[in-house]
Amino acid sequence: MSSSDKPVTACLIIIGNEILSGRTVDANLSYIASRLGEIGIRMAEARVVPDDEAEIVAAVNACRARHTYVFTTGGIGPTHDDITAQSIAKAFGRRLERNREAERRLLAYYPPERVNEARMSMADMPEGVELIDNPISVAPGFRIENVYVLPGVPKIMQAMLDGLLPKLEGGTRVLSRAITVLAAEGDVAQAGLGDLQARFPMLEIGSYPFWRPEGPGTTVVLRGADQAQIDAAADGLYELAARLGAETRESPTSG
Amino acid sequence: MSSSDKPVTACLIIIGNEILSGRTVDANLSYIASRLGEIGIRMAEARVVPDDEAEIVAAVNACRARHTYVFTTGGIGPTHDDITAQSIAKAFGRRLERNREAERRLLAYYPPERVNEARMSMADMPEGVELIDNPISVAPGFRIENVYVLPGVPKIMQAMLDGLLPKLEGGTRVLSRAITVLAAEGDVAQAGLGDLQARFPMLEIGSYPFWRPEGPGTTVVLRGADQAQIDAAADGLYELAARLGAETRESPTSG
Repeated sequence: MSSSDKPVTACLIIIGNEILSGRTVDANLSYIASRLGEIGIRMAEARVVPDDEAEIVAAVNACRARHTYVFTTGGIGPTHDDITAQSIAKAFGRRLERNREAERRLLAYYPPERVNEARMSMADMPEGVELIDNPISVAPGFRIENVYVLPGVPKIMQAMLDGLLPKLEGGTRVLSRAITVLAAEGDVAQAGLGDLQARFPMLEIGSYPFWRPEGPGTTVVLRGADQAQIDAAADGLYELAARLGAETRESPTSG
Repeated sequence: MSSSDKPVTACLIIIGNEILSGRTVDANLSYIASRLGEIGIRMAEARVVPDDEAEIVAAVNACRARHTYVFTTGGIGPTHDDITAQSIAKAFGRRLERNREAERRLLAYYPPERVNEARMSMADMPEGVELIDNPISVAPGFRIENVYVLPGVPKIMQAMLDGLLPKLEGGTRVLSRAITVLAAEGDVAQAGLGDLQARFPMLEIGSYPFWRPEGPGTTVVLRGADQAQIDAAADGLYELAARLGAETRESPTSG
């Protein structure tokens, strides 16, 4: 993977009625965003869509035109509600076919008495895809152009993404520091957090309030490509906290 | 709130760089979807967008044309990165103004020494909005046409939504049963889960695999407006499980 100055962005399309019904809390966006961030790919958008072909096609086509990478999670199992592969085929105007290598892997994995048409349908993919290895339950995901199709079960998705990351071309890695000021967000704002952002326009300065029994606090996250700028902004933030007479503490961050 | 046969849908727009960076896991989609489901409003779409005016405007305008209700979370605090109100004003082509009632509430709540311009900026809203009460930290949200603007902090958002729910017009309530079959999803599929869906086209039958040390399982969720159809499909699912020789258990669900 190489570094360059052009922004490399990603979009995640989360496919699944169970997320939209509120029954299941998505656990994949945070994981994928963090891992991509480590190699300089910025998650710039995410969408949650139902198990509906037209909705999936529309989301995939909108997002693949806008972003360097699109990832999808969910809908690639053996049941009738798993319609991601056929929807992706439709989005690209390609035929859905039984992928011979995926079929071979499934036949090698399942004992003969467990081979059935429902399971083998997990080998149905758009023509011309590249498989994404599944080190846990074998059924592969696939890549078609800039779209990476992954399962929704977090443990399996994570293992597949981990194998995929070295093949992705990252951009400039985003660095960050997170500093907590033990003062209310309205006071941190008034003490000049916006001025600090104006002094460092190349940084993204985010402010996240919280309340604890001992009082309010504000975590300020400084993000950008240049460590020296981040450190200079951090110094400015510590001065701001001193003006407020507020305690501070710095958290370790991972980008 | 009344019941009718037309589908009532909602979209949630989650505004915040901290969700897209992976730093924070969204906790609001699941809560809002569940509460809306209880009154027959179906969450049909969700989007996560960055703290970027053009992105927020585009998402709000796309979603408010498609759905009965649009909710936004995040970006209504006192700091420079809180740009939701100005973005919503732009989406509707309305002026941003100091809302007099919101200003009054903030001035009544904060002691004089804590009143400052950053805090008072939380009263800046598009002209002509209806306030959404905030029983926890006073700073109100607002409604503009079918768009409901809420904060991102879950505890505050939840209290505000709870106050809002009786004012929303719901649709036909979605009922559900969730039945777990202690068999692998590929076997449940092959035993006829798709045929069951074909027999009950008015229901939405979802299938969610899991793995436990004692073996694989599949939770099947039957959702729809008609309890008799759900019960008939559940009987069919119990027959399917019996053909597999698989144990079953039923979970309580809340729609």
